[in-house]
Amino acid sequence: MAAPAPPLPPQPTPDPPMTLPENPIGNPLFVRTRLANKDDVPHIHKLIHQMAVFEHLTDLFSATEASLSSTLFNSPPFQSFTVLVLEVSTRPFPEDLHHNNPVYPPVVRIFNLDLPIDDPEAGAFRSGDGVVVGGFVLFFPNYSTFLAKPGFYIEDIFVRECYRRKGLGKMLLSAVAKQAVKMDYGRVEWCVLDWNVNAIKFYEEMGANVMQEWRICRLTGEALQAYRNWG
Amino acid sequence: MAAPAPPLPPQPTPDPPMTLPENPIGNPLFVRTRLANKDDVPHIHKLIHQMAVFEHLTDLFSATEASLSSTLFNSPPFQSFTVLVLEVSTRPFPEDLHHNNPVYPPVVRIFNLDLPIDDPEAGAFRSGDGVVVGGFVLFFPNYSTFLAKPGFYIEDIFVRECYRRKGLGKMLLSAVAKQAVKMDYGRVEWCVLDWNVNAIKFYEEMGANVMQEWRICRLTGEALQAYRNWG
Repeated sequence: MAAPAPPLPPQPTPDPPMTLPENPIGNPLFVRTRLANKDDVPHIHKLIHQMAVFEHLTDLFSATEASLSSTLFNSPPFQSFTVLVLEVSTRPFPEDLHHNNPVYPPVVRIFNLDLPIDDPEAGAFRSGDGVVVGGFVLFFPNYSTFLAKPGFYIEDIFVRECYRRKGLGKMLLSAVAKQAVKMDYGRVEWCVLDWNVNAIKFYEEMGANVMQEWRICRLTGEALQAYRNWG
Repeated sequence: MAAPAPPLPPQPTPDPPMTLPENPIGNPLFVRTRLANKDDVPHIHKLIHQMAVFEHLTDLFSATEASLSSTLFNSPPFQSFTVLVLEVSTRPFPEDLHHNNPVYPPVVRIFNLDLPIDDPEAGAFRSGDGVVVGGFVLFFPNYSTFLAKPGFYIEDIFVRECYRRKGLGKMLLSAVAKQAVKMDYGRVEWCVLDWNVNAIKFYEEMGANVMQEWRICRLTGEALQAYRNWG
């Protein structure tokens, strides 16, 4: 995984747009994480479907744009289900007051790539002038009784195929970890399929411990509905 | 596991206390699940510690009554971290307006036991006149992107040793499952240690699927703090 470029230096004034280094090395890719909102649902829906395909789990996929819209973005960020989208652009991001959320100001990094990225789905994932959604992370608070502290549980973290292996997944996961530290939360947790060795290696490099002893139990569908008349 | 007794028939008026069957078979044990509140924290703290001992994980245990108090019961029930306590009594529960929460009216069942239970910790877990806390469940909303629906994640479910193998754990888990169905949630999930074969058998009998392929990743402690200055 390529090491991410250092963060932008502080801007002297808020007005001038970010400028490229005078002699950019390779092909600069501007990447930002920002809070998602209901306008992002069509892209999020497509990303979730791509993730289901990747995980060989399309039989479990039944989300629609409407069902996502009605269940997400109903609480303040970080208090309940929260989505950050990862956007990419070959040019500096335009000044964007709409996304300048004081709760979570967008984080921007510049990656200098050896080769430009050919994104065959750029049209379907366009989110602004020259800006494309490349991935997302969905997470929400969980709770550790041993620590007596909340944490974050990451339900999904996903980067589209043409943007992988460049440090963008690391940027998404780091954004959640940073937010957890900021809120004095005790843990960030998520799950990985045991055959996904690339992901496991990536997560361990990020400092995570993959716990071998625990198994997830799931009660769903008819087995869950059976409790309708209990009590 | 003993099958639970059928639920109480509806009471004709709210005034008279529940009465014992005229010829009780064996030893009746009255059991109820109710929403916990800050007053229950000392008992919840002791229960969590017992659970840490059972799981051989006391090295991870750092909760105090104060840290539990400050992080729990700050949101309406079911919207965030939620605790149900399980209480037992050899007599019908007194009329108890304090616990008659309209969001979750307590659920009461009578178990007819072959032998009376000797509870060596009855004093430490006393929560009312002849009433003792025997267990708890802590859970909170999670989210399935494939279903585009919330669910519940159970962080802890625990019954004190002298009350085990009588159906009380089933009562706690059923209470959460029933609430999930009531709220049109899609799943109830939790974790189990792979060596805890009794628990796995119990959960499967409750209708749960134990998922073998998934592993939990955890970022905590110094590895999490390393993200403090990211971004």
